Amino acid sequence: MTDRPPLETRVLFSRSPDSADPESAWQSAGAMERGAAAGVARVLDRLATRAPIVGEPDYPASLLDLADPPRVVFVRGALPERGRAVAVVGSRAATPYGLAQAGALAADLARLGYTVVSGLARGIDGAAHRGALEAGGASVAVLPGGLDAVTPRHHAALAEELCARGGLLSERASGPPPFPATFLQRNRLIAALSSATVVVEAASRSGALATAAWARRLGRPVLAMPGDVDRETSRGTHALIRAGATLCESAGDVRSTLGDAPGGTDGNPPEARLVAALRAEPRGAEALAGAAGLAVSETLALLLQLEWAGVAVAAPGQRWRRARP
Amino acid sequence: MTDRPPLETRVLFSRSPDSADPESAWQSAGAMERGAAAGVARVLDRLATRAPIVGEPDYPASLLDLADPPRVVFVRGALPERGRAVAVVGSRAATPYGLAQAGALAADLARLGYTVVSGLARGIDGAAHRGALEAGGASVAVLPGGLDAVTPRHHAALAEELCARGGLLSERASGPPPFPATFLQRNRLIAALSSATVVVEAASRSGALATAAWARRLGRPVLAMPGDVDRETSRGTHALIRAGATLCESAGDVRSTLGDAPGGTDGNPPEARLVAALRAEPRGAEALAGAAGLAVSETLALLLQLEWAGVAVAAPGQRWRRARP
Repeated sequence: MTDRPPLETRVLFSRSPDSADPESAWQSAGAMERGAAAGVARVLDRLATRAPIVGEPDYPASLLDLADPPRVVFVRGALPERGRAVAVVGSRAATPYGLAQAGALAADLARLGYTVVSGLARGIDGAAHRGALEAGGASVAVLPGGLDAVTPRHHAALAEELCARGGLLSERASGPPPFPATFLQRNRLIAALSSATVVVEAASRSGALATAAWARRLGRPVLAMPGDVDRETSRGTHALIRAGATLCESAGDVRSTLGDAPGGTDGNPPEARLVAALRAEPRGAEALAGAAGLAVSETLALLLQLEWAGVAVAAPGQRWRRARP
Repeated sequence: MTDRPPLETRVLFSRSPDSADPESAWQSAGAMERGAAAGVARVLDRLATRAPIVGEPDYPASLLDLADPPRVVFVRGALPERGRAVAVVGSRAATPYGLAQAGALAADLARLGYTVVSGLARGIDGAAHRGALEAGGASVAVLPGGLDAVTPRHHAALAEELCARGGLLSERASGPPPFPATFLQRNRLIAALSSATVVVEAASRSGALATAAWARRLGRPVLAMPGDVDRETSRGTHALIRAGATLCESAGDVRSTLGDAPGGTDGNPPEARLVAALRAEPRGAEALAGAAGLAVSETLALLLQLEWAGVAVAAPGQRWRRARP
């Protein structure tokens, strides 16, 4: 390995779209640009910022799944292990329902050991970060602007807390996001850092839908939480569900989608136990519930799903048999 | 055609599971049974009840799609034309949200010309019947007991109104439903009379899920209206959506699912117009919205769906192009 370039070189490299490597960026830059880069580097250094370059071991590997990974990212705190991060994103103009659900979902995800990734925006993003931290978990914010320019201002304390109990990441060295499109570009990093993306509340034009689209392009699961149909903030999540996103009622849905084993040690999920309880002769719901070790209500709900999936067949009198192969 | 048997013969036939036809049911019945049947027939006649038998022209043809159609049904008022009825069903223990949505959905369906079919139960059923009537439309109730035994009692006036502006149907000649399973058996008639079934609010064990399952067995579309995830009455509808039911936000979703033409005369649905506006070169959302004659917000929501369906491809800067075939 070569010597790692200093922070001011990395700052300059992040701004030089034509440079093949940090050294040539540094060589071709004028004295004024170098001076500005050194100034930014001093601020970042004070903020304990690292700036890993593609190919370096501390560069977040999951970003390399993007067609256009940033050549250098600016990082404070710690980034999640690959496979242990879930994005929770949604509307800035969130409702009390959305804020409560985002907070509870993030808290439950944190308890399951996932790092919650979001965008530090007001509304759902802020509720998700806070929910994870309040549950004693970790959370990472991907900023549209530089790490020296946290917005909204009233999230500055939250950003500091994230650095202690998670991290901040940006592909910009400093300053506010220059274009509206910068926010949408940022969303690709949220999706790429996360094994799954959950959208909680999104109106039809929400940027959260762009995050979902990035996750989809990356082949990562997208989940969406439904809500009452008479709220505008349900439009986007319902559109996602129609388009194939997984309906999310709780953190358990995220875990199932990721195929992670449930907390218990018996291993067999309820569906599998119920399928095993089905016979060639129809059995009543109570008998099936007993055999599968499930509540009758859960059994009936699962039977309906199994019937739809062609695994169970309904017989008269609320009884079900196994479908013939 | 033979002479149509009188009402008392039909009453007896409906009760004689071993009889091949009304005449033999009448012949084999004892004097006491015949007397009871004549008594029931007098009540039904006073209620202006008809009792079509399978094979008679006024027997509702859509019931013949069932594996076990009733041999005779008791009918007051008028039944919907085939293809023009939609079931709206759900929890008895409905919430204000569910009641409001069921009423609004039924009203909109009525305005679109559909007859709203339900079960006259308290909760969602009652709200659906009332919504259709208040919008000036027709509604049909399928009763679990006889037409002489409307329950709940406080729905008696609603039942009379339904006879004037729709109808009542039952497979039982008289008396209350004898078994809990009778309600679930009744649900197959609701599903069979209707071209589609919409579930609005259902807990995990709701009978409305049985109606949905019957519709599914009949190959008829099932729709479910989502709601906030922190309400028990959303469990069943979300389970349906997970299992493949169509997410229903409005009567428009029912119409699209049934493939009925929209009210307008231009014919082309928004998706088709948007697909036609996509080019090999990426175009911005505003340009696409203009070309398709859509709002930008609707365009963005549709673009996301088209992208997921592999029809549109996203390009940098919120632009989309047509996918290469």
